[in-house]
Amino acid sequence: MMRTRPLKVALLGCGVVGSEVARIMTTHADDLAARIGAPVELVGVAVRRPSKVREGIDPALITTDATALVQRGDIDVVVEVIGGIEPARTLITTAFENGASVVSANKALLAEDGAALHAAAEKYGRDLYYEAAVAGAIPLVRPLRESLAGDKVNRVLGIVNGTTNFILDKMDTSGAGYSEALDEATALGYAEADPTADVEGFDAAAKAAILAGIAFHTRVKIGDVHREGITEVTAADIASARRMGCTVKLLAICERAADGRSVTARVHPAMIPLSHPLASVREAYNAVFVEAEAAGQLMFYGPGAGGSPTASAVLGDLVAVCRNKLGEATGPGESAYTRLPVSPMGDVVTRYHISLDVADKPGVLAQVATVFAEQGVSIDTVRQQGRPDGDGEASLVVVTHRAPDAALSGTVEALRKLDTVRGVASIMRVEGE
Amino acid sequence: MMRTRPLKVALLGCGVVGSEVARIMTTHADDLAARIGAPVELVGVAVRRPSKVREGIDPALITTDATALVQRGDIDVVVEVIGGIEPARTLITTAFENGASVVSANKALLAEDGAALHAAAEKYGRDLYYEAAVAGAIPLVRPLRESLAGDKVNRVLGIVNGTTNFILDKMDTSGAGYSEALDEATALGYAEADPTADVEGFDAAAKAAILAGIAFHTRVKIGDVHREGITEVTAADIASARRMGCTVKLLAICERAADGRSVTARVHPAMIPLSHPLASVREAYNAVFVEAEAAGQLMFYGPGAGGSPTASAVLGDLVAVCRNKLGEATGPGESAYTRLPVSPMGDVVTRYHISLDVADKPGVLAQVATVFAEQGVSIDTVRQQGRPDGDGEASLVVVTHRAPDAALSGTVEALRKLDTVRGVASIMRVEGE
Repeated sequence: MMRTRPLKVALLGCGVVGSEVARIMTTHADDLAARIGAPVELVGVAVRRPSKVREGIDPALITTDATALVQRGDIDVVVEVIGGIEPARTLITTAFENGASVVSANKALLAEDGAALHAAAEKYGRDLYYEAAVAGAIPLVRPLRESLAGDKVNRVLGIVNGTTNFILDKMDTSGAGYSEALDEATALGYAEADPTADVEGFDAAAKAAILAGIAFHTRVKIGDVHREGITEVTAADIASARRMGCTVKLLAICERAADGRSVTARVHPAMIPLSHPLASVREAYNAVFVEAEAAGQLMFYGPGAGGSPTASAVLGDLVAVCRNKLGEATGPGESAYTRLPVSPMGDVVTRYHISLDVADKPGVLAQVATVFAEQGVSIDTVRQQGRPDGDGEASLVVVTHRAPDAALSGTVEALRKLDTVRGVASIMRVEGE
Repeated sequence: MMRTRPLKVALLGCGVVGSEVARIMTTHADDLAARIGAPVELVGVAVRRPSKVREGIDPALITTDATALVQRGDIDVVVEVIGGIEPARTLITTAFENGASVVSANKALLAEDGAALHAAAEKYGRDLYYEAAVAGAIPLVRPLRESLAGDKVNRVLGIVNGTTNFILDKMDTSGAGYSEALDEATALGYAEADPTADVEGFDAAAKAAILAGIAFHTRVKIGDVHREGITEVTAADIASARRMGCTVKLLAICERAADGRSVTARVHPAMIPLSHPLASVREAYNAVFVEAEAAGQLMFYGPGAGGSPTASAVLGDLVAVCRNKLGEATGPGESAYTRLPVSPMGDVVTRYHISLDVADKPGVLAQVATVFAEQGVSIDTVRQQGRPDGDGEASLVVVTHRAPDAALSGTVEALRKLDTVRGVASIMRVEGE
């Protein structure tokens, strides 16, 4: 049975994602109406540059006054795709106060202040949906908060940033250095003019915070996420990974501690075996593994960014929120009842690959091994090789067994003090084994 | 805010899945209560053999009278994991009449009579959820009917039966024949004593019907699905696939026709390139590709069967249905508004790999090529090879371009009439390119 009064939708932002949302709302209006049970009508689009020509959007809908739009009082759903903390946060809260539910793609805001937004949504009895905030079109938020709602998630591990995956993939396949690969990513539109948010891991850290919060039913903010970007990954690291049968990926890893009393969330480059399914995630694609007690290992794969894929996620949420509106219900809100604390990086237990430049003389390996033993870090394999130029230096590549990050840091500090260790060329974690 | 009156759950069936559902409901009761907003209480378990010892289940809950259990009138949710058409169908309908929503893992029933069940659920204002009916723990039903509700799905292609994937994987890795691989699957518990439902493709066809219906918002029954099993796949087929850089998988494929006016659904063995992500799905795992207009290509991977994974899916649905009950709402029901007809197999357009035994003499290739041309099937490659034993026969392996299945059938019929064609050794479709 179709209701004839349409649901009113306001769009905040009309860039790559917003314009695609508006386009699909128009071209697929009949399908959306059939799936929701009522037509949806775009009643306003808030933009910064009203003079820009926006094909397919009625110019009468365009406004620069986003605040007035969300304050109208007759809006059913506000779609927020402007990004950033402010004015997005105030606009979303104002939308809740004025009767609207919200669909957002704003990972930075949700990772910074998700708890307050959820509280506002609950106070006013509205929905806050944000599938598009994590990994574009790949369904992750809904599977984690609904499909796995009866299970216990222990680990989320994935590639959640397309720009950095593109760069690392180029480095791996072509042998290029970081700068060269970044240039190619920029030229092809995979990296922004200022790539900081991607290459320094801020974007992935925001997604890790959101995923960890949902997966473990607790609150994790972006500041709780240990973050290392890919700017220091070298061609030598990639070559070294290859020699180990591995490749290098920027991973977001959220884990429940073995004793179940805390969680960790981190983003850093890591070596993973070529046989691991994440190793074959190429170019700008994203993929996320979820390990749950009953379900076992699940993987979700797809395009993690881009206007159309992100719009697909926004529209899926829009349909759900509109259905809830019609049924005078709300979907699942924040679930943070476990209140599990987030442990620091030092508590994370994993394996390490360490390259040292050492003096090429007898006894060095014994000295190095002693330092590892003293710090309680057990060595798995060591590869020692002299330099062909005979400059009196050699390389020592150590791969450890699992050890706490704090112990590894202590080991590296002690190694740097050895006379025979000329430098620590690289340290990289080894995951996915 | 926690409601103290518990939601009452009745469990129909207590086999591999049911016992795991009961176990998790007990061991994770606090988590489920927190996530639902009210405790859930198992108030009855209908079984066939009441004398069997069932660890962790209060014997007072056991009953053989499933009908009386669903007629109690105070049940909030009925979990149906008995499978098969009857008595499951009558019990589910009775549950709706008596106030309960239903979570089911029953693929056979949903693929046979899903429309009637959905109609009954809607009539009484109840939920019918069935994530567990397709691919175990892998979230597919919810992503298709909710996450992609704002998108247009054009294709679903996947491995949805673990038993047959295990058998084909064994044949591929060990060179074993079908019978030998089936014996190993049976010995390891991957195949049932009577493997018909799996190896003849009935199980996969039921899942294909369910997926096609949801993906295309239309009604597809198991009888609409073209079905071929794996019993005729030979070691020679697998070897031939290898020579083409392919492997053989039993695929479920649901497609929207190019003109958008009909859909097809089919299950059959097919060659796929080794570079395709489905080629690396090993043992009893499942994986499904979904291609949507805006989202692009998504893949979902995980354990497709087993007590725990299936229970995970059941419990995710249980949490959702309980939340709906508390909110006096219902989730999305059947969406079949497109009423797209299901076209017959003859309309499916794909590529083919055909092995012919032919007379080893000049002119045979010309004759064969003429038949293909007359039927409008364009040849991509031909490989011709004499037999080492010089018995006057040769093999001809033809790979075609895309052509309608009906044209291919016509071609094969005509080929069989040629004097120089001694036999059609195998015909296999080529997918995923």
